[in-house]
Amino acid sequence: MSPVTQRVALIGSGFIGQVHAASLAAHPGAQLALVCDIDASRAEALARRYGARAGQVNEAFSREDIDMVLIASSTPTHADFLAQAVRAGKAVYCEKPIDLSLAKARAVVESLLPLQVPVTVGFNRRFDRSHQQLKQHIQQGAIGAPELIQMACRASEMPSLDYLRASGGQMRDQAIHFFDLLRFLTGDEVESVGALGAALAQPALRELGDVDTSVLIMRLSRGALAQLDNTRRTAYGYDERISVVGSAGMIASEPQATRGATLYQQSGVTQPGLFPDWFSRVRDTYYAQLDAFLRQLGGETVADLPGLMDGLQAQAIAEAACESLASGRFVQVERLI
Amino acid sequence: MSPVTQRVALIGSGFIGQVHAASLAAHPGAQLALVCDIDASRAEALARRYGARAGQVNEAFSREDIDMVLIASSTPTHADFLAQAVRAGKAVYCEKPIDLSLAKARAVVESLLPLQVPVTVGFNRRFDRSHQQLKQHIQQGAIGAPELIQMACRASEMPSLDYLRASGGQMRDQAIHFFDLLRFLTGDEVESVGALGAALAQPALRELGDVDTSVLIMRLSRGALAQLDNTRRTAYGYDERISVVGSAGMIASEPQATRGATLYQQSGVTQPGLFPDWFSRVRDTYYAQLDAFLRQLGGETVADLPGLMDGLQAQAIAEAACESLASGRFVQVERLI
Amino acid sequence: MSPVTQRVALIGSGFIGQVHAASLAAHPGAQLALVCDIDASRAEALARRYGARAGQVNEAFSREDIDMVLIASSTPTHADFLAQAVRAGKAVYCEKPIDLSLAKARAVVESLLPLQVPVTVGFNRRFDRSHQQLKQHIQQGAIGAPELIQMACRASEMPSLDYLRASGGQMRDQAIHFFDLLRFLTGDEVESVGALGAALAQPALRELGDVDTSVLIMRLSRGALAQLDNTRRTAYGYDERISVVGSAGMIASEPQATRGATLYQQSGVTQPGLFPDWFSRVRDTYYAQLDAFLRQLGGETVADLPGLMDGLQAQAIAEAACESLASGRFVQVERLI
Amino acid sequence: MSPVTQRVALIGSGFIGQVHAASLAAHPGAQLALVCDIDASRAEALARRYGARAGQVNEAFSREDIDMVLIASSTPTHADFLAQAVRAGKAVYCEKPIDLSLAKARAVVESLLPLQVPVTVGFNRRFDRSHQQLKQHIQQGAIGAPELIQMACRASEMPSLDYLRASGGQMRDQAIHFFDLLRFLTGDEVESVGALGAALAQPALRELGDVDTSVLIMRLSRGALAQLDNTRRTAYGYDERISVVGSAGMIASEPQATRGATLYQQSGVTQPGLFPDWFSRVRDTYYAQLDAFLRQLGGETVADLPGLMDGLQAQAIAEAACESLASGRFVQVERLI
Repeated sequence: MSPVTQRVALIGSGFIGQVHAASLAAHPGAQLALVCDIDASRAEALARRYGARAGQVNEAFSREDIDMVLIASSTPTHADFLAQAVRAGKAVYCEKPIDLSLAKARAVVESLLPLQVPVTVGFNRRFDRSHQQLKQHIQQGAIGAPELIQMACRASEMPSLDYLRASGGQMRDQAIHFFDLLRFLTGDEVESVGALGAALAQPALRELGDVDTSVLIMRLSRGALAQLDNTRRTAYGYDERISVVGSAGMIASEPQATRGATLYQQSGVTQPGLFPDWFSRVRDTYYAQLDAFLRQLGGETVADLPGLMDGLQAQAIAEAACESLASGRFVQVERLI
Repeated sequence: MSPVTQRVALIGSGFIGQVHAASLAAHPGAQLALVCDIDASRAEALARRYGARAGQVNEAFSREDIDMVLIASSTPTHADFLAQAVRAGKAVYCEKPIDLSLAKARAVVESLLPLQVPVTVGFNRRFDRSHQQLKQHIQQGAIGAPELIQMACRASEMPSLDYLRASGGQMRDQAIHFFDLLRFLTGDEVESVGALGAALAQPALRELGDVDTSVLIMRLSRGALAQLDNTRRTAYGYDERISVVGSAGMIASEPQATRGATLYQQSGVTQPGLFPDWFSRVRDTYYAQLDAFLRQLGGETVADLPGLMDGLQAQAIAEAACESLASGRFVQVERLI
Repeated sequence: MSPVTQRVALIGSGFIGQVHAASLAAHPGAQLALVCDIDASRAEALARRYGARAGQVNEAFSREDIDMVLIASSTPTHADFLAQAVRAGKAVYCEKPIDLSLAKARAVVESLLPLQVPVTVGFNRRFDRSHQQLKQHIQQGAIGAPELIQMACRASEMPSLDYLRASGGQMRDQAIHFFDLLRFLTGDEVESVGALGAALAQPALRELGDVDTSVLIMRLSRGALAQLDNTRRTAYGYDERISVVGSAGMIASEPQATRGATLYQQSGVTQPGLFPDWFSRVRDTYYAQLDAFLRQLGGETVADLPGLMDGLQAQAIAEAACESLASGRFVQVERLI
Repeated sequence: MSPVTQRVALIGSGFIGQVHAASLAAHPGAQLALVCDIDASRAEALARRYGARAGQVNEAFSREDIDMVLIASSTPTHADFLAQAVRAGKAVYCEKPIDLSLAKARAVVESLLPLQVPVTVGFNRRFDRSHQQLKQHIQQGAIGAPELIQMACRASEMPSLDYLRASGGQMRDQAIHFFDLLRFLTGDEVESVGALGAALAQPALRELGDVDTSVLIMRLSRGALAQLDNTRRTAYGYDERISVVGSAGMIASEPQATRGATLYQQSGVTQPGLFPDWFSRVRDTYYAQLDAFLRQLGGETVADLPGLMDGLQAQAIAEAACESLASGRFVQVERLI
């Protein structure tokens, strides 16, 4: 086996675990070696499909023939598995968030950073091809200095109440990707945030203290202003969009439609609708982030791979947004980096 | 002269006065009879161009052969001219705002309402063809109940400091059109507003306590949430856009480009840019609002013609937005209607 | 009266005559002085509306206070009125075609050319803003050498049989604009043409030896190839489009939609339809051609104003296309210029 | 092994052979068993990559454990391998054309049809998702009766002279896909064709009697008219488009752009360009046609799978087009079905 092939243990064989397994199988620089899950039969089925082995989670940390751990298990287990993997010297790809509690996440990260083990946190939307072109255009100066950022994060289908109960809420679960994208695109930090929210589509969220529709405004430290709106369900498909207005122009990552025929009638021109759901839009980004991490492990310098501190800082913004939603006040964001 | 032809006195012969004069000349239901301005020679020139007479402003109120007064003079004169015209029983088309002071505007309106004279306030963007289609689609239920409204009001060229000093600030001068559009489109009232702003393009605004870039979030009384961003100058043309996400779909009035050729090259596909400035986009709405008002005066029932109370309520939102900008807190909007 | 103001006699007060009258009234360099029509009351009504005088057609040629004649009468009268006006030394704007008979048109043109009187023929589509941008891009080299030109001329509403009987057929009446545009855009001449046609929408055309749907291919003298399709009625609005593929890119003048709202639903994204009819798309070009001619009369050098020989050459292509439709063979185009 | 899994012998391991190998490896209903090529080491490499075996071409026909043969070898070998495979009772997926000589292709097909072995010919563009939506809309009556079909087939990169010499020419090699699509979309037959062509991009083609740029018009048996333009190289990406104008509307499969950011500047709005080459646009259709054929072999009824007679009839149109290019006359198409 070539020295640059990473032998990977995958923890978690649910929906996202399966997505990662397919990516690992397709990537020439990785080998899916071990699959672990508390549901052993599910781990077994996934392992068999890709010629891997199913095993106990502690094997992921203890075995010499594992180079990298991919954590795609349930959120409450992330921090502990992350800590064990890093202490065992394994490279780690950890799904976000590190922990729903910012305090706990922070404690873990602070203990692990000195060990200087390569870790990436699953902010895969950084690897959306259109969003990346935004960053390139901004860096090349095509729009001058960013002044106004507008983002929309609109999922198409309301998740189950079970999912929502465990999610940490719209800010920590959904909006957090855009808090990270905002940092990624601008290279700047959020200073303060104001948020308004409501449970319009799923009224049961009110009892959970959560919302399904929200609007946010933010001030960045170098002076730019930003907006974000979130909804848990649209009736028209998955709508993710970012535009950045700068002193010399605007660059936009528009909502993306599926491909198909255009019908011209007297009443109007009808084109295919947006991607039906979040996964059809972001599918490629999982592979792209994995590929970037593997290239980094192979010695290449890869810009903008989200690290542990990126994971923490996005959570700090989510925390402030939650506080604003609850208090009806603007809230300062704690600066962890 | 047919009884439905309105003989109109135009007060103010500056840029907007000239726009209205051209509309009046072209409209079969109106006759531009009198033009008044403190600059008598400018009034004279405009009157001559359209076969009207130039005269003193008091003639607009005192003459029997004047049916309607169109107030397009400088903002500090609006309230007084409005009061005189209404008391003289003339129908009035009054440019916004009624007065920069909400208190003064309110006092004038309260004194005039009992007189039941037809008055419309110049919220001409209600007559933008695309925005009107939004309202029609919403009313016909095409998107279900509105839940999330996103608006952008991005002018292309920074006005002069002289203009800015007299403008009342970005909220009262620019954003106010969108406060009115939000009420118009949703048929709902704004309850509270949070705003962040900065003087990014014209730093001299800081000394005036004004901003040129701002982001706002608002909560409406029936539960929907709204966003608005404003800038005084883009580098890419005039960008006015509104989208309304509802429980059953989304309807959008997109930024509008000029017409022209599409160039396909290896490096990309280039289409004509956005309208170069606000006037090229909104030009038709002045005629459309005038036409709607004249039709109402002719006995037709015209929905959504903005009246005195609409003028006041939009100013109340602007007032709350200013307070939020200054205080860094969310602010309740006073309900005047 | 300023020496550059042209005093114009308008011959013909039907639909197109009324369009020209409105342009003349609005243009600062023209004065509509005289309106002539075989229907005297219609001429009278149009003259009154714009403060002109109605009169006999011979006045257009004989009166000293007429500088320019605009011929918008029925096609069979064009050649005679054109000849009289030119011989009287009047500048002439003549609606196309000069005559349905190419031989007669040619004889008239040959007799008039030596008189060197300014004449323009009504190929107004040369003044479509998008088509003009095509030419500018081509001239600036944006697409390299033109190799392949694709044009569609698709009217939305089938004209009456009365109109069709007098029209000279689809080639001479409808396609002729695009024969002229092809010459205008490429600066090249059509050498040969092949055409297929059918009467699919109005079967009664078969008895007239005419078609309502046709496809053509043409070879140009410098080697480029061109296509044109024509229909007399679409069910989806007016669809006029031209694209030019060159050795370094493509430039396209796309079909144009009306402005309005975009509706996003699960089933697709619906935008406003195309312009409903030809006139709403080409309306502005009448004014633009008149303006160009008036500027030329005022001493300015105006490129690409269609002259008598342009009128003839486009007719020669139409003639060849008719022969191809009838014979089922490719036909050489007679070169008149 | 499940009875519905087809064990496949792939003949040809060049570019298209490799594409098919990847599809076979990914498809659950197929197993790539054998790879044959006159270049044995290339066959060996491809076989190894997907866990198959390399072997002699006669094994594809003689072995019992081969159910299906996929012919992706050089064109001159197609007819012979097809005949051997069919006579051996193997299902066949044969790349187009059956043979460059229509007479030879016809003789082979006539001898094989009575054997009633399942065969599909590689007109993979029938499986383009957008083109398929055209057909669905047409069949559902969304545009009424088709009257005018416009097609463009514009490849981006000029092939090598070696390729061009062996290709059979632009009609038989490139346009043939659109002759088939025209039949597929309309369910109608081409009666006559007129063509003009030129060697504008690669003058060396003139000596080969071939062209790189061509325009065609066609009459269909039920009365509709069609256009097609072809070029071997654009400078702006791969441009494949079809629109069908019917009595009640138009349906269009537009040129497809890559995904990415939209840049708004004063000078215009720039979007990502078209797909860079033909393969990036049509890549998915190879898998889709293979999948359709496998489903048919599995007992499903699959509409519009192109069969041997479809292969022949498209070649007959290409033959007529070549004759028209050479003779400068319209040519009747021989009706083989």
